[in-house]
Amino acid sequence: MSAIEPAFNRPALEQLLGKRFFYAPAFSLYGGVAGLYDYGPPGCALQANVLDIWRKHFVLEEDMLEVDCSIMTPAEVLKTSGHVDRFSDWMCKDLKTGEIFRADHLVENVLEARLDGDKIARNAPVEVKADKDEKKKKKAAKVTAVRLEDSVVQSYKEILAQIDNYSGPELGELMRTHQIKSPETGNDISEPVVFNLMFASSIGPTGQFPGFLRPETAQGQFLNFKRLLEFNNDRMPFASAQIGRSFRNEISPREGLLRVREFTMAEIEHYVDPAKKDHTRFSEVANYKLNILPASVQLSGKTDLLNITIGEAVEKKIVDNQTLGYFLVRIHMFLTKIGINPDRVRFRQHMANEMAHYACDCWDAEIHTSYGWKECVGCADRSAYDLTVHSNKTGEKLVVRERLPEPLVEEKLQLEINKKVFGPRFKKDAKAVEEHLAALDETTLEGLKKSHDEAGTFAVNVNGASFYITKDLITSFEKASITTHVREYTPNVIEPSFGIGRILYCLMEHVYWTRPEGEARGVLSFPPIVAPIKCLLVPLSTNEVFMPILNKVSAQLRRSGVASKVDDSGASIGRRYARNDELGTPFGITVDFQSAQDDTITLRERDSTKQIREKIEVVIELVKDMCEGKTSWEQVSAKYPAFVSQEVAE
Amino acid sequence: MSAIEPAFNRPALEQLLGKRFFYAPAFSLYGGVAGLYDYGPPGCALQANVLDIWRKHFVLEEDMLEVDCSIMTPAEVLKTSGHVDRFSDWMCKDLKTGEIFRADHLVENVLEARLDGDKIARNAPVEVKADKDEKKKKKAAKVTAVRLEDSVVQSYKEILAQIDNYSGPELGELMRTHQIKSPETGNDISEPVVFNLMFASSIGPTGQFPGFLRPETAQGQFLNFKRLLEFNNDRMPFASAQIGRSFRNEISPREGLLRVREFTMAEIEHYVDPAKKDHTRFSEVANYKLNILPASVQLSGKTDLLNITIGEAVEKKIVDNQTLGYFLVRIHMFLTKIGINPDRVRFRQHMANEMAHYACDCWDAEIHTSYGWKECVGCADRSAYDLTVHSNKTGEKLVVRERLPEPLVEEKLQLEINKKVFGPRFKKDAKAVEEHLAALDETTLEGLKKSHDEAGTFAVNVNGASFYITKDLITSFEKASITTHVREYTPNVIEPSFGIGRILYCLMEHVYWTRPEGEARGVLSFPPIVAPIKCLLVPLSTNEVFMPILNKVSAQLRRSGVASKVDDSGASIGRRYARNDELGTPFGITVDFQSAQDDTITLRERDSTKQIREKIEVVIELVKDMCEGKTSWEQVSAKYPAFVSQEVAE
Repeated sequence: MSAIEPAFNRPALEQLLGKRFFYAPAFSLYGGVAGLYDYGPPGCALQANVLDIWRKHFVLEEDMLEVDCSIMTPAEVLKTSGHVDRFSDWMCKDLKTGEIFRADHLVENVLEARLDGDKIARNAPVEVKADKDEKKKKKAAKVTAVRLEDSVVQSYKEILAQIDNYSGPELGELMRTHQIKSPETGNDISEPVVFNLMFASSIGPTGQFPGFLRPETAQGQFLNFKRLLEFNNDRMPFASAQIGRSFRNEISPREGLLRVREFTMAEIEHYVDPAKKDHTRFSEVANYKLNILPASVQLSGKTDLLNITIGEAVEKKIVDNQTLGYFLVRIHMFLTKIGINPDRVRFRQHMANEMAHYACDCWDAEIHTSYGWKECVGCADRSAYDLTVHSNKTGEKLVVRERLPEPLVEEKLQLEINKKVFGPRFKKDAKAVEEHLAALDETTLEGLKKSHDEAGTFAVNVNGASFYITKDLITSFEKASITTHVREYTPNVIEPSFGIGRILYCLMEHVYWTRPEGEARGVLSFPPIVAPIKCLLVPLSTNEVFMPILNKVSAQLRRSGVASKVDDSGASIGRRYARNDELGTPFGITVDFQSAQDDTITLRERDSTKQIREKIEVVIELVKDMCEGKTSWEQVSAKYPAFVSQEVAE
Repeated sequence: MSAIEPAFNRPALEQLLGKRFFYAPAFSLYGGVAGLYDYGPPGCALQANVLDIWRKHFVLEEDMLEVDCSIMTPAEVLKTSGHVDRFSDWMCKDLKTGEIFRADHLVENVLEARLDGDKIARNAPVEVKADKDEKKKKKAAKVTAVRLEDSVVQSYKEILAQIDNYSGPELGELMRTHQIKSPETGNDISEPVVFNLMFASSIGPTGQFPGFLRPETAQGQFLNFKRLLEFNNDRMPFASAQIGRSFRNEISPREGLLRVREFTMAEIEHYVDPAKKDHTRFSEVANYKLNILPASVQLSGKTDLLNITIGEAVEKKIVDNQTLGYFLVRIHMFLTKIGINPDRVRFRQHMANEMAHYACDCWDAEIHTSYGWKECVGCADRSAYDLTVHSNKTGEKLVVRERLPEPLVEEKLQLEINKKVFGPRFKKDAKAVEEHLAALDETTLEGLKKSHDEAGTFAVNVNGASFYITKDLITSFEKASITTHVREYTPNVIEPSFGIGRILYCLMEHVYWTRPEGEARGVLSFPPIVAPIKCLLVPLSTNEVFMPILNKVSAQLRRSGVASKVDDSGASIGRRYARNDELGTPFGITVDFQSAQDDTITLRERDSTKQIREKIEVVIELVKDMCEGKTSWEQVSAKYPAFVSQEVAE
C-alpha cells in the first residue's frame, strides 16, 4: 500500500475535527504556538478509551508493573543517558533573515521541488502529494519547470530514499554540492548545527540546578529498576510500563498531531536475560503475519514489503529474537483492536544512522496516512545500554542475581597481593590500585601475567598515574578453580514505545468517510470500544411525554457503564444523527410515542443507519455487549428484525 | 479534632510505603531532588482508582466537558493571567552562607522554637509536634530553654495564627522586630524578595519565545471557553474539567507528598451566570452537614469549627452562594467515598491576604494528618477574573449571549458624531477616538454630557494624547430608548481544584493501623473501590494440583474486572497475607485440597481476617459486588457462615 485513496479529503476531516473540538491548536487566542494542541471533550474521551485498552492489552494481560514518574528531570540523569549530548536534530539558518530550518527537511523539500520541476519540464504528470501541508509548502521552494540531467534525477532520488540516514556534516555537504539555498529568499544557508531537542529549565530557587523536561518516559523506569525487581520478588523476565507526558522542542513542528512539542506516550520496558531472549508466549503468535520492511531492503534503495509470519522472521533472524517478535505482533493486535486499518500498518527496521543513540535494533510500526507512512510505535532493543550507563555513573549495581541451578566451577587467574608491602609502597593510592587490580577481567589479567612472568613487573594506569606492580607486591598469580553459586547480569531491555497522539490522528483518518447521499456528510466510524460517546439518546421531539423514558434509559446506560448523551434540542432527528456521525457515536436510541405505550425503543447503528426495535432492557443489554466487544452489530442485526420508520427517515 | 491519636507512627508508615513502593523520591540513584517523587505500582494503581472515582463522581455525574490541554504555556498567557507578576512566595537568604529560606516558614519555625524553649523554661510540657519532619527540624532553630515575657508569648501566638496572612515586607518587619536570624548559623537574613514559583523554559529553536510549565490546569480551560460553550450548544451553566500534571518550583519542598514541585491536579471550572448563582441540585444537599471555619473566626485568632448544614450556611451568607455550597458538599462526599475519615475534614475560608490573586472567595477542604491540617482541595470563586483579562488582552469576546425572554427597553445616552468633520479634524487618530467614544459607559457619558452642555466641549484621553470634542463634531448627544434582545455577560467561575498527591497521602495516613497481635504488623485499610489490588489468590502450597483452579479463578476475576494477584511463592500463607495487608488488598482467596474436590474456595477479609467458604462462582460474584460498592463485607459475613480453618491460621 503506497498511496491513499485519491478521494481522501484531509481539509474536510480537519474541519470536522475542529468543529467538533476533537482537538485544536493550543493558545489560539494568543496566536497559537506551533506543535502544541489541546484536546476537547471528544478527543479527550477517545484518548482515555485508547489508553484504557492499551492498559488492558499490555499492562493487565502481562502483569506489567505500572509506574508514574517525574517529568522534570535533573540534567545529570539525561547527561548520563546520552540525551544531553545526542538527543538532537540538525538546524541551519538563512544567513540574512535568520529563518531557521531543520536541515534534513530543507534538503528534502528543495530536492522534491526540483524533481517536480523536472517532471513539468518533461511534460510528465506531477503527483499531487497529499503530504504537503500549508507550512511545509511555504518552506519549500517554488516549483519551477527546469529539466534536470537524468543522472541528477537519479542521484536526487537516492538521496531522498535515505534522507533519515545523514549526519549533520553530510547534510551540509549535500547542501553545498547541490546548491541548496533558502527557499523563499534564495539566500545562503549556514552549516547545519546541532540543536538539542529537550526543553531546559532550572530546579529550585538558586538557579544553579539545571533540569530538562523528559523527552521519553523511559529513564524514570530505568532509575527504579532495583525497586521494581524487588517488587516483582526478584523474578525475571518482567516489564514496567508508564503512560505520561513527554516533551520535545522540535525545530519545526508540522503535520498536525504527527509532530508536536508535547505529547502523551505509553512505554513498556521489558527486562530480559540477554542469554534468553525467547518468550514463553511466542508460540501463541508464531503464525501471525506482518508486513515488514527490513533495513537491508531500504539500503538497496527499495521499499518493498515482506509479508511473513513472525515465526519465520525470527527463525531467519530478520527479526532478532522472540521477545522482539512477540511485541511486534502484540503491537499490531493493539492497533487493529482500536480500529487502525491493518492493511495500512507496516514494520520498518531502522537503518544504522537513524537509530537512537541507545538502541541496537529498532522496528517502527508505521501507519499510512495522507501524509505518507508515519512512525507511531517504536520497538527498540536498548540492550543493556541504560542500566549500564546509570550504574557506571552512580556506582549502584543495576543487575539481576540469579542462583545457579548447579554451582559453576571455572579455572580463573587469581591475583593476590601482599598487603604489607602494598600499603607502604603506594600510600594514599594503595586502595585505588588494589580495587583496580580486583576489577580486571580475565583477558587483561592474562596479558599482565605474561609481563609479570617474563619481565618480573607490569604497569597499571589508575586515575591518570602509572603504578608498577613488582613481584614483591604479589603473593600469588596463578590459575585456581573458582566456584560460583550466583550468576549476575545486567538485563537487556526491549522497549515498545507508543506515541498516543500520532496513533489517534491516524485512527481518525482511517475511520473517516463521507456519506454519498445529498451533501457530503462526514462520519467517523470508530469501533464502539474506542468511540468517545457510545450512544445518543433522542426523543422524537421536545414533547414532555418522552422525558420519563429518556431519564430511565439514560440512568440504565450509566449503570451499565455506557457513556451516553441526550440530545433533546429542537433540531430534526436527521440533523441530530448527522451531528453524532461527526462525533463517531456508534449507536442511537430514539424514544417515540410508541415507547410510552409498549416500553420499546429503536436502536440505530451509525455505519449502516439500519435500525431494530426492541424492549428497553433488551436494547440496553445489546448496546452494552457491543460496546464491550462481546457481540457485533452484524450479529445483532442478523438476530433481530430490521425496523423501518417514516419518522426517523433522514 | 485538633490532634492525631498519640500512637500514630509516621516513620513506620513511611517505611511501609517505601518498602512496598507506593512512592519513592525520584532520582534517588542520583541523590534525589527535593519535591519530586515517583509512584510505584501500588501508588500508581491507587492514583488511577481515585481518579476513576473522581471522573465518575464529578465529570460523568454532572456531564462536565473534560479536556486535556498543553502543559507548556507561552509566557504571555501567564502574564495576562497574573501568574508572572503574582504567583510567587517570599524568600530570604542567609547573608553569609547563601542558604535560602521561605520567609514565612522561617518566621514560623523560629517563633515556634522560642515558644517551646519558653515552655521548657517554665517546666510546662512541650507537645511533641508530629509535624516536624527531618528537613524542617534541620532548618528550625535549636530549642533553648529561655523564658519569654508573657506579652511576647501572646504576640508570637497571634503572629503564628495568621502566618499565612503576611506580605513580604510585613515578614521582613517581623524578622527585624523579633530579631530572627539564620537558625543554624545565627547570621543575618536578607529582606524577603519575591520568587516566582513557575518553572521557566523557552519554546522553539530561536530562544526568544519564553514559556512556563503551567502552575494549574485552569488556564487551558479558560482559553477554550468559546469552543466549550459552543460544544455545549451554548447552554449555561456548564463545567469543564481537566486531570493533569502541574508544576510549582517550590522554594523548600517538605512534608513528603504534601508540598512537591510536580503534581497531578484535577480541576473543575464551573461557569455560571453571575446573576444566578443558585444550583438546580442544591436541594439534594441542603441538609448535608459540614465542619467549617469561616475567615471571621480565624481573624479573631480562633480555630473553632462550626458544624452546620450547607443550607443554613448559604442562607446566613457564611458561604456566598448555592453553587459554591453545592460543590463543598460534593467535595466532602468524594473524600468520604475514597476513604478519607470525615471527622478529619474541615472547610476553611481564606483570609483576604492569603487568597490567590484571581479569587474573590475561597474555601479549602483541609484534611487532618500527622503534619496538622493540610489544604487538599481548594474551592474558589474566581468571579469573571480570568475570562475578563484574557478577553481584554486578546480582543476576543469571552461572553455568553442569551436571548432575553422579552426585549429590554432602556433610556440611554446616545452620542452620535459628525463623521464629515471628525475625520478631517483627527486624521489618523479619528478611528481610535471614535472607538473610544463608542466604548464609554453610561456614567462617564453623563459626566461628559455635562461638560458638553455647559462648556460646549469635553476632552478624552486616547493612547496618551488628549482630544477635544467640540460641539461641531457632534450631531446628537441625548437620551434615547434602546431595545435589547440579547443579554451579554461574562460568566463567573466556581473552581473546585484537587491536589491528587496530597489527597493520596492523607488517605494513606487515615487508613493505616497496626495489628496489635505479635510484632506490630502494618495494615492499609483501603476501601475496596480504591485498593490498588482487590484480591490476592494464594494456593495452600506450591503443589501443582492447585494450579488449574488458581488459573480458573484468576481468569474469572479478570473477566469481572477485578484486579487480582497470584502469590504462589513458598512463603507461609500468614506471611503472604501480611505482605498484602501492607499493600491494602481487601480480599484473599485460598485454594486448598478441598477446592480440588468440591469447587469451593475460602474468602478472607483483610480488616477482620474473618473467612467464609463458598463455591467459586459465589465468591467471585461477592468480591466483584464488594469492589463495586454494591454490597459490603458486613452484609456478606452476616449472610454466609464464618469458616475457620487450621491451615490458614496465622
